[in-house]
Amino acid sequence: MCCWPKYGSSIPNAISSPTALCEVGPLKASRLHIPTLRQTPADAELAGHALLVRAGFVRSSSAGLFSLLPLGVRVIRKIEALVRREMEAIGAQEIMAPTLQPEGLWRRSGRYDLFIPPLMKLRDSSGREFCLAPTHEEAVSELVGFDLRSYRQLPLLVYQIERKFRDEIRPRGGLIRAKEFLMKDAYSFHADRDSLEETYRQVLAAYMRLFEACGLECLVVEGETGSMGGEAAEQVMLLASCGEDRVFRCDTCDYAANASCAACRAPTSTPERDTMGEATVVPTPGARTVEEVCGLLDVPPETLVKTLLYESGGRFYAVLVRGDRELNETKLEACLNAPVRMAEADEIERITGAPVGFTGPVGLPEDVVVLADQEIRAMVDFVTGANIAEAHLVAVDVGVDFEVDQYADLRDAVPQDPCPRCEHGLLTVTRGIELAHLFKLGFQYTEPLGVRFSGVDGRERPAIMGCYGLGVSRLMAAIAEVHADERGLTWPQPVAPFDAAILLLHPQDEELYRQAEALEWELEGRGWDTLLDDRDERPGVKFRDADLVGYPWQVVVGKLAKEQGNVEVRARVGGAEVVCPIGEAADRLTELARQDG
Amino acid sequence: MCCWPKYGSSIPNAISSPTALCEVGPLKASRLHIPTLRQTPADAELAGHALLVRAGFVRSSSAGLFSLLPLGVRVIRKIEALVRREMEAIGAQEIMAPTLQPEGLWRRSGRYDLFIPPLMKLRDSSGREFCLAPTHEEAVSELVGFDLRSYRQLPLLVYQIERKFRDEIRPRGGLIRAKEFLMKDAYSFHADRDSLEETYRQVLAAYMRLFEACGLECLVVEGETGSMGGEAAEQVMLLASCGEDRVFRCDTCDYAANASCAACRAPTSTPERDTMGEATVVPTPGARTVEEVCGLLDVPPETLVKTLLYESGGRFYAVLVRGDRELNETKLEACLNAPVRMAEADEIERITGAPVGFTGPVGLPEDVVVLADQEIRAMVDFVTGANIAEAHLVAVDVGVDFEVDQYADLRDAVPQDPCPRCEHGLLTVTRGIELAHLFKLGFQYTEPLGVRFSGVDGRERPAIMGCYGLGVSRLMAAIAEVHADERGLTWPQPVAPFDAAILLLHPQDEELYRQAEALEWELEGRGWDTLLDDRDERPGVKFRDADLVGYPWQVVVGKLAKEQGNVEVRARVGGAEVVCPIGEAADRLTELARQDG
Repeated sequence: MCCWPKYGSSIPNAISSPTALCEVGPLKASRLHIPTLRQTPADAELAGHALLVRAGFVRSSSAGLFSLLPLGVRVIRKIEALVRREMEAIGAQEIMAPTLQPEGLWRRSGRYDLFIPPLMKLRDSSGREFCLAPTHEEAVSELVGFDLRSYRQLPLLVYQIERKFRDEIRPRGGLIRAKEFLMKDAYSFHADRDSLEETYRQVLAAYMRLFEACGLECLVVEGETGSMGGEAAEQVMLLASCGEDRVFRCDTCDYAANASCAACRAPTSTPERDTMGEATVVPTPGARTVEEVCGLLDVPPETLVKTLLYESGGRFYAVLVRGDRELNETKLEACLNAPVRMAEADEIERITGAPVGFTGPVGLPEDVVVLADQEIRAMVDFVTGANIAEAHLVAVDVGVDFEVDQYADLRDAVPQDPCPRCEHGLLTVTRGIELAHLFKLGFQYTEPLGVRFSGVDGRERPAIMGCYGLGVSRLMAAIAEVHADERGLTWPQPVAPFDAAILLLHPQDEELYRQAEALEWELEGRGWDTLLDDRDERPGVKFRDADLVGYPWQVVVGKLAKEQGNVEVRARVGGAEVVCPIGEAADRLTELARQDG
Repeated sequence: MCCWPKYGSSIPNAISSPTALCEVGPLKASRLHIPTLRQTPADAELAGHALLVRAGFVRSSSAGLFSLLPLGVRVIRKIEALVRREMEAIGAQEIMAPTLQPEGLWRRSGRYDLFIPPLMKLRDSSGREFCLAPTHEEAVSELVGFDLRSYRQLPLLVYQIERKFRDEIRPRGGLIRAKEFLMKDAYSFHADRDSLEETYRQVLAAYMRLFEACGLECLVVEGETGSMGGEAAEQVMLLASCGEDRVFRCDTCDYAANASCAACRAPTSTPERDTMGEATVVPTPGARTVEEVCGLLDVPPETLVKTLLYESGGRFYAVLVRGDRELNETKLEACLNAPVRMAEADEIERITGAPVGFTGPVGLPEDVVVLADQEIRAMVDFVTGANIAEAHLVAVDVGVDFEVDQYADLRDAVPQDPCPRCEHGLLTVTRGIELAHLFKLGFQYTEPLGVRFSGVDGRERPAIMGCYGLGVSRLMAAIAEVHADERGLTWPQPVAPFDAAILLLHPQDEELYRQAEALEWELEGRGWDTLLDDRDERPGVKFRDADLVGYPWQVVVGKLAKEQGNVEVRARVGGAEVVCPIGEAADRLTELARQDG
């Protein structure tokens, strides 16, 4: 645990630079702005966010927008330092790209009107349109493309730690999902796929080291590519019951995936029994939903096939899933490699000849493509819409009554599904907070934005790209969600606002004040980022605040100090505690911390 | 000079953290993205900006928007570290406030529609309107006001280093005036004026120390309060011929002020001679400008009085200045304590009964207030508009032909004006770049935004506020404007992207490579931020690039090293140079740097 090794640098770190200390002395709580609150804020949905507000780290500015108070900035600066350490260790170089980005740049990638959530757009006084960057694939591609000439400049890994903007319609969870947030985004450019794979692995390993330093146990899961596009994506998830994301994990192997893209195993393709007879129209007046039809016909929903009509790229698709399943639009879009939209009621009537609720795959116009979830392959004699108002077909069979143009994995996974990877595992579901998202983008941006280089053979080609996002302000919020107890926050030391707090219970006593200050100097000299709580407050307030803020180590200079010259040295978490003379406190703290780490 | 003192900190600085070094080794130019250009970019108006582009620090993204390449980020990080050191030394605490700010917040201060340049505004998907913060008086007042209770929490000095947005219509000068830029803004809150004065002086002193560390000689000048409002303002100016601002200085005392608000000394109020006769109308067909009227009547312009019609707060004002002077609208607004606008042609015709060009103070409607520059007091028998088409009045006198409601200093200062402060001095004009702007805001924001506290007497009152802006990206650009020579940039070491570069002229020689790398390790160990130029390039390219980028110290490992084991240690500026065995290079470099600093 504990402090980073000492080193010489011409870049001073001002927060605890000795120059600053020489002039103002170590930091005193009486001079710092650490406004703690007694009450839990009414609008805090998450326990960790409520603690960040109560303990004086964060204030809400308006919906989805936050300010950080000095303690919050200290945590962010420590996270940033960890991020920079890990990124520099793998050869990443820091850049800064603008937040305001011209419309034309985003038109070149084709995302200007398609990005989800929609871009925040504005015009300047000369009428030019800009968006506020929610991510920087376009800007960084343009920047790198400007100077890229030769394969000798590759691979190139650049990153920045900057604010991003997303027009979240229902921002929630405090800093977990804000409209404006701090993100570390990295982008890599490569001459070949092996190089992308290597850098991708290095970045993922760096992220895992970082999360470990933050005291977070994380899981790498398959993720959707979404608005980023590209070829493959993974997310790093912190498993937490308050998380917005649902994650499927195998109970046997290490398969894990976001619910939005968890794969479903293909069933054995042979139906379990033979077909029983010919498809027949049955009247189903007023029964449009799976539930209504099953109730009317007294059949279980897994014997029914839902037919959903979608449009994509000007074509219509009839998409079939079993009655008890949900279609997964992410998988449908991946299957078609294009965005999709559900057909409108009037389009359904025009194409099927029947109102919404009675669509089926039998007798559709020839230009409608029939896509079926792979489970349909194992079904016989199923129920489906008849394309006739108030009627369904029973005993329908593929190959007999209609043809499927393509089978694919198109449904949402559900708990207890067989694992798509191993033989015997079953999937379970859990909740998580996305901490990082990594993408293999391929030529998605480098081709349209002209990020090209001359290869060893002298031929010019586009670079292969990867991108790697990591939520910095979200990371602080996620740590607060899992590192807390009934008394307050319990920061892991590398990201704590201070390493240690000296609780001086009787600051009016000049001799004790002098001794406490000497201890603070000694701890600072040993690399401990230390706060002296010298406020004119009751001891109970100091104990309560120290636990609420969550300083990992506390040294109590109280009655014992006056009477016997002893202080209490204790850990915020785990109960380690020793009583020792104040002159030995720094040694004992160092020992305790060594045992702890 | 040289490196900052060593210190222990739990916050590692990743750029040269030993952890990073252990894993990747010291930084090699062959692995860094430092794209230098042979050509000066066509769109660079300023020499320093052109060098920043050529040397691989900055790239233009679109008009007024820039990206920073890794070298640029290194300089910014060093400036930020200096800023933090100086700010923490005076007890300032770092915060982070949002960029997106709701319309309502700015309506409370009354600046939403009045800020100059106009705010960049946008709507989110729910239709709420926001602006992009060009400055944070409102947001920080709200943040501090939320937690402020008692005088015991004051004084409070907070700061942030964040991007700001201004809708510059004609962005120019590269990073000197960009649409999006990095700014350090600080805000202070006080129980009384003495406390504001003390903090104001401390901040100004901190800024001057910072600019000195950046190798800049600066001048503190009186500045206008402008869009910030408040009671008084000063600017810190870097004197540079490329600067946008004009500064007047006294050649005798230390008076200095921005041209926009340089004061003019009141003339002796007694006219030099008596009036000669009665005011008479003379025809001046087609003569509307001072030049035309003077030409037609054959009189010098200082015998004429210009009358300009302005509107402010629903009232009209006739504003008089001598014919050879320019009205200063900043002074007019300060005089009226309200924004003003020039009257339109139709308003002038309606009020004076004559078209534009013939306005005068005689016979105006009673509700038009007559304001006169203080020089008018000393004039007799002057020429002015007759409020009759194609006619002027001659031999006009105040008190005889019309009355002046108020005299004030309303004109632009001009070179050779007498100093407004000392007895014998004359003003000279020079150009400058504004590096910082400091304001005593008084209750301007704390009153409308309710930043209140209980005083010692238990009574509640608004806090007194100050604010202190410093352009961080502009500072980098300003340093580049003055620290450059015909070969390239000449960074002062505290803000140089690297302290030293080792130019390894024959990187294929394994023994020399090993020795150069050992030297790099040794320098890093001593706290020198060092780059090893191991690129497969000709020696001439390495020399040229090293001078262009402007590493303050260079160690040349070339032919001498191979033949005699010697290297050349030299300074980028001043010509210091020694030849020594490579094993002694680190010692010699330290000595040279000590002599230099």
